[in-house]
Amino acid sequence: MQDLATAEQKRVLILGAGFAGLNVAKGLADAPVNLTLVDRKNHHTFQPLLYQVALAVLSPADIAQPIRAILRSPNTEVLMDEVIAVDKDTRRVTLKSGTVLRYDYLVIATGSTHSYFGRDDWAALAPGLKTIEDALEIRRRVLLAFELAENEMQETGQHPALNFVIIGGGPTGVELAGSISDIAKLYMKSDFKHINPSTAQVTILEGSPHVLSMYPEDLQKKALEQLAGLGVNVRTNAHVTDVKPGYVMVGDEKIDSVVTLWAAGVQASPLGKLLGVETDRRGCVVVDGYLHPAGHEEIFICGDLAHVEIDGKQVPGVAQPAMQMGTYTAESIKHLLRGEPIKKTFHYFDKGDMATIGRKAAVARVAWPFKADLSGFPAWIAWLIVHIFFLIGFRNRLSVFRSWAYTYLFFEEGARLITGSQQLPGWQTHEAAATATPDEVSTKP
Amino acid sequence: MQDLATAEQKRVLILGAGFAGLNVAKGLADAPVNLTLVDRKNHHTFQPLLYQVALAVLSPADIAQPIRAILRSPNTEVLMDEVIAVDKDTRRVTLKSGTVLRYDYLVIATGSTHSYFGRDDWAALAPGLKTIEDALEIRRRVLLAFELAENEMQETGQHPALNFVIIGGGPTGVELAGSISDIAKLYMKSDFKHINPSTAQVTILEGSPHVLSMYPEDLQKKALEQLAGLGVNVRTNAHVTDVKPGYVMVGDEKIDSVVTLWAAGVQASPLGKLLGVETDRRGCVVVDGYLHPAGHEEIFICGDLAHVEIDGKQVPGVAQPAMQMGTYTAESIKHLLRGEPIKKTFHYFDKGDMATIGRKAAVARVAWPFKADLSGFPAWIAWLIVHIFFLIGFRNRLSVFRSWAYTYLFFEEGARLITGSQQLPGWQTHEAAATATPDEVSTKP
Repeated sequence: MQDLATAEQKRVLILGAGFAGLNVAKGLADAPVNLTLVDRKNHHTFQPLLYQVALAVLSPADIAQPIRAILRSPNTEVLMDEVIAVDKDTRRVTLKSGTVLRYDYLVIATGSTHSYFGRDDWAALAPGLKTIEDALEIRRRVLLAFELAENEMQETGQHPALNFVIIGGGPTGVELAGSISDIAKLYMKSDFKHINPSTAQVTILEGSPHVLSMYPEDLQKKALEQLAGLGVNVRTNAHVTDVKPGYVMVGDEKIDSVVTLWAAGVQASPLGKLLGVETDRRGCVVVDGYLHPAGHEEIFICGDLAHVEIDGKQVPGVAQPAMQMGTYTAESIKHLLRGEPIKKTFHYFDKGDMATIGRKAAVARVAWPFKADLSGFPAWIAWLIVHIFFLIGFRNRLSVFRSWAYTYLFFEEGARLITGSQQLPGWQTHEAAATATPDEVSTKP
Repeated sequence: MQDLATAEQKRVLILGAGFAGLNVAKGLADAPVNLTLVDRKNHHTFQPLLYQVALAVLSPADIAQPIRAILRSPNTEVLMDEVIAVDKDTRRVTLKSGTVLRYDYLVIATGSTHSYFGRDDWAALAPGLKTIEDALEIRRRVLLAFELAENEMQETGQHPALNFVIIGGGPTGVELAGSISDIAKLYMKSDFKHINPSTAQVTILEGSPHVLSMYPEDLQKKALEQLAGLGVNVRTNAHVTDVKPGYVMVGDEKIDSVVTLWAAGVQASPLGKLLGVETDRRGCVVVDGYLHPAGHEEIFICGDLAHVEIDGKQVPGVAQPAMQMGTYTAESIKHLLRGEPIKKTFHYFDKGDMATIGRKAAVARVAWPFKADLSGFPAWIAWLIVHIFFLIGFRNRLSVFRSWAYTYLFFEEGARLITGSQQLPGWQTHEAAATATPDEVSTKP
């Protein structure tokens, strides 16, 4: 019965509320459609700043917003649910709760997730960074390592070396490495009596010959210099062969690690394969210039999940192209609604790339509005401005700005909270202590 | 060897970094002592605002601060650890990590925890509110209930009634009830397409004849009126006899509940009993006028853990007396260090009590600087001012002020994030949906 009332309106179903999905929904906010967006989370996460939640500069609510609060258009409904099946023939999507949704146009923008290269047992030992939950787990482990070291030192006068190992030397790996170095050397400087946090050693293990391989060579070099300046140890051509509690193996070499983080592999959301169309090696859906998988002009694939090639070059899986694909898809659907064909294929307008390395350290390849390769302080300032600008909501911009001011000017981190378990996998406590006799009581200096 | 260097300095050991413990440490920041503070958490939690983290107004970092960042005095060290034994004879405390700490003066201020009256199986079904983790769990459950109801409604056109049951009508129970009502009626008003969040029903089950029983009768009445105004259902003399997934039993009556919260029983930290001295029925340590347990003038019990009677009246387990006991104990220890006896017994300077009920609704018994019973908007304003003032750190005050401004002026809640599991114990999903045939596909209006 309900169907009759809206029989004339086409149903647009968007899966995923990342940059791509949100931009589709925003683009169609005033369109004469019935729009449903489904996401597993109730919030959109501003992923470029997720590492700052992990390293205690920002709070989750600074970079995440309820999807319902972003998409308030009367034609839009939001469901917090998970997709378990897509039937392209009957144009129906089944959700975990049992709900079945019909669509006329389907936009799949469910992004990517970690890939442990088939070694899913590594996941618990080396968390990656994709969700708020991931960020809080990384925060917990990194901060806890210092606390446990202080306890050990207080008791025995020694502690396991504070070696942090980051697997993967892409932007996320570099950001995590720089931030841990900042915490250890700047923000915790005077917080402990027994340990010296600045003795912490951060190592990046990168399998390829270069860190930040998507950047021009001169910026890679500048990034390496800045990492060296922070004391971060970078090892390229280092293929991790095993991850264990307390250490990592690179071939026959055992590298001790109190906290191991994963920033190496990325694979497409499983929805790509579920769809039953052509996917690439990472599970991304191969699409044509209109972002359609072969044979399905009613389906659009946007963001990280899309394998798009323009002039033989693959569009990278980062925020800018995801947003642009979202906007493009919304426009395309509007054309189709008016009965017009889609005229232009998707064009990626490359404004550049940037990655922070630490406080006052960054690299930026600026492609628009002028061309320039920046590094160091200017790149860092550019990074700050761009990221504040792209945050959703005035409230979050204000909050992040205030947090950054405190952290970068006053060396005070606002979100240094350890929540959850107080265990660290593989932490080597001094066993003897538990059986110490009263005569062996340790004392503080 | 390390011992020699500081042999002249007395060792003060503080257990717990709540209001009491922190105030002892602050009071001794300049004293010629060797001070160690031990807490299980790395942060101090401003408990009076914890319910605002639970109900998504504030972020954890707004009301919690790293203990190390608060206590920066050179004579003070902080350990994140747990006490497992206290030996009063040899004056030694053993921590979970194995560390053994000697003390000359011991301050125990480990507060209180939930009491499920021996029914610990209720804990998972009805979380209480003492820690940041508790607050996030309550937030998750409350927000998730609305999302699951929306899914059910979308699919089947009906959903389980959004009944929230709060067991306990003290300040925490009243605050939780009012906040859930605010979320449902004010902050989520236009967020859902299928459900009407304002149909949510909040019920307080209080075992005694009165809510807010520590307040004067006229304020209790005013509180009841304000709760009624918010649509909160208050049932007094309602003894909960069982808590089950999806419902609560009061005698033979079954009360449906999609989310049950616990604000009823409080018991002292187990350290009271571990100490092997006289405790009261709730496990609080019975102390003399100097806050000593009988026969131990080197031990001070502060805050909720202390059973202190002044003129036959027990000092309540809230923030103000805890702070005052902390300050008093620091002064007492300074006297003892100078070889002087402690002259005055502890005196509780009662400034009053206040509890919020919702946006613009509160009760306040003001005892200082003037005597007055306030309720409604004036009480709420007084509450805002007092709580901003007592927050630790300018940064947090600013952050909370901003969040309140957004929430109370613009009806926008900043921290409405669901993290963790997407299951709710006892949630009655529409089973038929899972086996629906394509013909039975549900549609949106």
